Amino acid sequence: MTTLHDRAIRGFASDNYSGVHPEVLAAIAAANDGHQIAYGEDAYTARLQEVFASHFGEGVSAFPVFNGTGANVTGLQSMLPRWGAVIAASTAHINVDEGGAPERVAGIKILNVPTTDGKLTPELVDREAWGWGDEHRAQPLVVSITQSTELGTLYTPEEIRALADHAHARGMRLHLDGARIANAAAALDLPLRAFTRDVGVDVLSFGGTKNGALGGEAVVVLDPAASDGLLFLRKLNMQLASKMRFISAQLVALLEGDLYLRNARHANAMAARLRAGVEAGLSDGSITGVTFSQPTQSNGVFATLPDGVADRLREAFRFYDWDAAKNEVRWMCSFDTEESDVDAFVAELSRLT
Amino acid sequence: MTTLHDRAIRGFASDNYSGVHPEVLAAIAAANDGHQIAYGEDAYTARLQEVFASHFGEGVSAFPVFNGTGANVTGLQSMLPRWGAVIAASTAHINVDEGGAPERVAGIKILNVPTTDGKLTPELVDREAWGWGDEHRAQPLVVSITQSTELGTLYTPEEIRALADHAHARGMRLHLDGARIANAAAALDLPLRAFTRDVGVDVLSFGGTKNGALGGEAVVVLDPAASDGLLFLRKLNMQLASKMRFISAQLVALLEGDLYLRNARHANAMAARLRAGVEAGLSDGSITGVTFSQPTQSNGVFATLPDGVADRLREAFRFYDWDAAKNEVRWMCSFDTEESDVDAFVAELSRLT
Amino acid sequence: MTTLHDRAIRGFASDNYSGVHPEVLAAIAAANDGHQIAYGEDAYTARLQEVFASHFGEGVSAFPVFNGTGANVTGLQSMLPRWGAVIAASTAHINVDEGGAPERVAGIKILNVPTTDGKLTPELVDREAWGWGDEHRAQPLVVSITQSTELGTLYTPEEIRALADHAHARGMRLHLDGARIANAAAALDLPLRAFTRDVGVDVLSFGGTKNGALGGEAVVVLDPAASDGLLFLRKLNMQLASKMRFISAQLVALLEGDLYLRNARHANAMAARLRAGVEAGLSDGSITGVTFSQPTQSNGVFATLPDGVADRLREAFRFYDWDAAKNEVRWMCSFDTEESDVDAFVAELSRLT
Amino acid sequence: MTTLHDRAIRGFASDNYSGVHPEVLAAIAAANDGHQIAYGEDAYTARLQEVFASHFGEGVSAFPVFNGTGANVTGLQSMLPRWGAVIAASTAHINVDEGGAPERVAGIKILNVPTTDGKLTPELVDREAWGWGDEHRAQPLVVSITQSTELGTLYTPEEIRALADHAHARGMRLHLDGARIANAAAALDLPLRAFTRDVGVDVLSFGGTKNGALGGEAVVVLDPAASDGLLFLRKLNMQLASKMRFISAQLVALLEGDLYLRNARHANAMAARLRAGVEAGLSDGSITGVTFSQPTQSNGVFATLPDGVADRLREAFRFYDWDAAKNEVRWMCSFDTEESDVDAFVAELSRLT
Repeated sequence: MTTLHDRAIRGFASDNYSGVHPEVLAAIAAANDGHQIAYGEDAYTARLQEVFASHFGEGVSAFPVFNGTGANVTGLQSMLPRWGAVIAASTAHINVDEGGAPERVAGIKILNVPTTDGKLTPELVDREAWGWGDEHRAQPLVVSITQSTELGTLYTPEEIRALADHAHARGMRLHLDGARIANAAAALDLPLRAFTRDVGVDVLSFGGTKNGALGGEAVVVLDPAASDGLLFLRKLNMQLASKMRFISAQLVALLEGDLYLRNARHANAMAARLRAGVEAGLSDGSITGVTFSQPTQSNGVFATLPDGVADRLREAFRFYDWDAAKNEVRWMCSFDTEESDVDAFVAELSRLT
Repeated sequence: MTTLHDRAIRGFASDNYSGVHPEVLAAIAAANDGHQIAYGEDAYTARLQEVFASHFGEGVSAFPVFNGTGANVTGLQSMLPRWGAVIAASTAHINVDEGGAPERVAGIKILNVPTTDGKLTPELVDREAWGWGDEHRAQPLVVSITQSTELGTLYTPEEIRALADHAHARGMRLHLDGARIANAAAALDLPLRAFTRDVGVDVLSFGGTKNGALGGEAVVVLDPAASDGLLFLRKLNMQLASKMRFISAQLVALLEGDLYLRNARHANAMAARLRAGVEAGLSDGSITGVTFSQPTQSNGVFATLPDGVADRLREAFRFYDWDAAKNEVRWMCSFDTEESDVDAFVAELSRLT
Repeated sequence: MTTLHDRAIRGFASDNYSGVHPEVLAAIAAANDGHQIAYGEDAYTARLQEVFASHFGEGVSAFPVFNGTGANVTGLQSMLPRWGAVIAASTAHINVDEGGAPERVAGIKILNVPTTDGKLTPELVDREAWGWGDEHRAQPLVVSITQSTELGTLYTPEEIRALADHAHARGMRLHLDGARIANAAAALDLPLRAFTRDVGVDVLSFGGTKNGALGGEAVVVLDPAASDGLLFLRKLNMQLASKMRFISAQLVALLEGDLYLRNARHANAMAARLRAGVEAGLSDGSITGVTFSQPTQSNGVFATLPDGVADRLREAFRFYDWDAAKNEVRWMCSFDTEESDVDAFVAELSRLT
Repeated sequence: MTTLHDRAIRGFASDNYSGVHPEVLAAIAAANDGHQIAYGEDAYTARLQEVFASHFGEGVSAFPVFNGTGANVTGLQSMLPRWGAVIAASTAHINVDEGGAPERVAGIKILNVPTTDGKLTPELVDREAWGWGDEHRAQPLVVSITQSTELGTLYTPEEIRALADHAHARGMRLHLDGARIANAAAALDLPLRAFTRDVGVDVLSFGGTKNGALGGEAVVVLDPAASDGLLFLRKLNMQLASKMRFISAQLVALLEGDLYLRNARHANAMAARLRAGVEAGLSDGSITGVTFSQPTQSNGVFATLPDGVADRLREAFRFYDWDAAKNEVRWMCSFDTEESDVDAFVAELSRLT
């Protein structure tokens, strides 16, 4: 099979538009050849457990799955009885971007709360944290947060600790959607456990795909008492890879050394560069009418543009509207975004405004 | 990441114990770098549609998914209303090996029929093909067959045509689980369409993983009138890959040329060699007490062994019991099984009996 | 079995705290004795079809079920593919009071919109009416309204027409939760069809239980093109009564003459009397600190009370908090509420404030 | 509403073709008037707990539901994790007559085993009791039996004890579908607990409808450790009656005295009379060609008839084919079957053969 696309083109649409980091591809090749037991009893999945333990401490267990929706739905389901509900921000991926899979596959009701920045607080949680014991109400038993959030913002470890304490005090568990957890670690400059296990997160979805994998995530159980039946649920939810060694090898490649951090730091830096470039343009007047709608704390930049600019800008660079009614757009940077991509993008924006 | 396993060891446990064919790995690398639209609007998924059309004819559509369970459940669900049931052989993978996913995820009742060789016939179908219009009975609206079967046997095109005609005449559709469809094509020495679309199969699961892919299958709709909503169901069922180009590239690599056939022919040939070796041993008395329990028509050999032999043989070669109560075992060959593997295996069996 | 409760005690907790209207009990007795075909092929279910046709016009079909949750979930499910979502007010019973049954049993995502009075408008619908064709979003294909609403308010026929037109123009259908549809008919002084079928409602849940039945509701399909498979879904959803004649007889008793109206008018009148009594007290100063939080348009009165009053009032009369944080309470009247109940209640409220 | 049917006509189609026993109707009337807390906190549901305790002993809890499918599915679901499977006879109502509700609503795979008489044995259970811990197999964690069976046969207490011991020794629980449990109690002439709780049944569906109720069943938890979350599951499964007092009153009426036994004994006696009448005809030659296909141990008679006889007999009396291919029919007797019905039926059969 030959290459069918222009390998030089990169845009700002999503960090999953990018490909596979060369070190990840090399890991896949290293895990190849010979026979390995299917469905997870291979050497690479065993190694992955060690790697996760090195990051999160002893006693954690990781269940590799195919994708983020699979990780979120399977992880949440393992935390909940059939009558359970999840409190999440209205902008949470599980609420708006998983096609109803949490509801249909796992039977989970999502009690969603509007936020300004994609972040829950104990006060926001309390809007839906009530009604335990009343069978007429789907029982709120898990709070789910995303780190970094779908709006590119970050929770501090203290904020997560406050949410965990709040949830635990009410008999609820804390789930963290870490589709971009590496970006959070890089931005906070903290070990992964410092803002997860150490501050009370019970189960998390570890995201490899957006961080440079071909495709691979993991449900990571930080508190074994918070989760039940993952072995069976992963299979039931059709997330059990037969040649699992290749998913595990990807995650090992990201996490064994510092590849996850290098990739995330680069993506974050590119977003910072993009924002700085636009801000500079706004300062010197070469760019006009652009307003940032969220702080840029990880690898995404959210902004509102003058009428019509988004579509013209998209003729050169692919990206998504976030809220078309408000002319709000999202520009995502990836591990493979280059400085020249950013600079060309800012120049084009300057030309158009 | 370094290699953690002995790349020289191969067994007869399953064709998914094997790794990735080098041409498939090369295809992944060729599809890498640069940005491609996520979730299926990439050049490789577009190319895959052409490749499937070249095999199955115009008008087919293929939906890449992660694994066989995902392909089967999603495909069947797209063929059925919420009240639908599927008639299948008792030994069908969907009945015994998918952890209840068809029932729990898709709400499908499987009306299973015992067979001697894993193959349905119109007469066997009729044991469960009744009760339409009666709301007390889950409605049998799909017949599902596996080709090659879980018992290593094959349907002839005529047999499939008879099943399709029988099903269609009763308002049912025909689904084919093609986890090992390439082995069937190789064994029958027929184009893929000759025993699927041309003889009335409506929807099939195309299996790439056991044929040498890293991980990739596709739901292939042969008759568009037989399937609805696959775009949504694939997402709902958590089978939508963000970096889909890499799944599609694998399938293109298998199907664009004759790699799927080369791999399957080799696996089939190794199974034939294994059987011939054992038969020779039985003839010359160097092997005793082994009986073949199924014909060897593709890449699996089923046999019953004298008491205790299976476990001793497993000290050298990994394989599975099929029916431990009967001392029945399954020996699977793969695209990477080598003649020396087979010969050493037969020699060991000879030594033990 | 002897009577175990005080038959003289009535409160304002819910219209389902009341019992069975004598004419409904008589209808059950009239349908008794002899054999009738189970599961709906009886004379009373046939008669029920005629009765519904007399109210809603030719071509409607009614499926008796056990309860309101069953009617809503089964009706909505019949209107939606597996990937469908429903737009509803945040206060809708389907969103807050059915224990997650729509999500878990039917796999339906509810896209809920905050309102001030429990009523959707086209503008409110538009907050969630988008994203068709995007598989990442559960597809909004039905708008569901409640009439009279959970807040005791009413839609005018024109308002429903506007919602129906708006929904239909976008490829969505309109569902009406009529748990208290009789109260709406009485309050609007209109035939049932005038604010349902004639203004574009496609499927409705007809509520008998709160109107004086022992227990019985029906999914009523007003536009056959809007609903599919109800026969099977009712059974699948465990809402198929074997001795259906007795559910149908109850609904016939309510709808054959004007019993549904008499009951509803009485309940509405009692709520009006309650409100008028409190308003009089507020005017003459005998009651203080009570504010009405919703207009009283059917059989429920919503009010906020001074601190502590609700609990003391509950020592004499049972009723529910609506929003305890705001001291908001709900007082419901029923077909069997008597003027003396209302007057005693107002007197007690007066005494306490 | 007036009576629309001929109250004198009775057939042999099903015990749910009959109406309501007068004492049950009287109990409904006795529970009427005044207000009672909805959803189960009423005096009649409290009384029902006492009544069940008097039959089954202290520590049992009963959850009234609408119908048998609801009782079975909800009870089984409360005994199983999401990955659980149920071993049942192929003829079990849950396998063949609930429209796939166990699979679709509860996600339960039914591992069904063919039997000759509708009864499981430990040996038959073992055909499917394997594979624990293997996530590829839906986990068999409950054995479900029906008493009296769908074929009119009975388990002895010893047989049930053997099944319970066998199941418990393997970590499985025992469920009993008691849609006709009263007929079993009458036939065995034993207290209800003697063949349920005392011999190891963990959860049962108590059937009131076929025993003379208008409509009402209960999930009865005999071992609290065997069931979880019924309060929530009943609501989720749409089986929670708002005016529950009327379901509970029916069951109290049946069980408080001996009405359940009187009704069941009568139905059983009518079946015995029917069988005896046919046997007498066969002896004296007035009836020919009729063969009994099952022993008549409760209220159903199963027989095969000469070609064409079934349809001609149905011109006078309604009943169902059981296996049309074999000319096998089922004749069910009910609490209201009269001796004259039976005698006329036997006479007509005699006339036709």
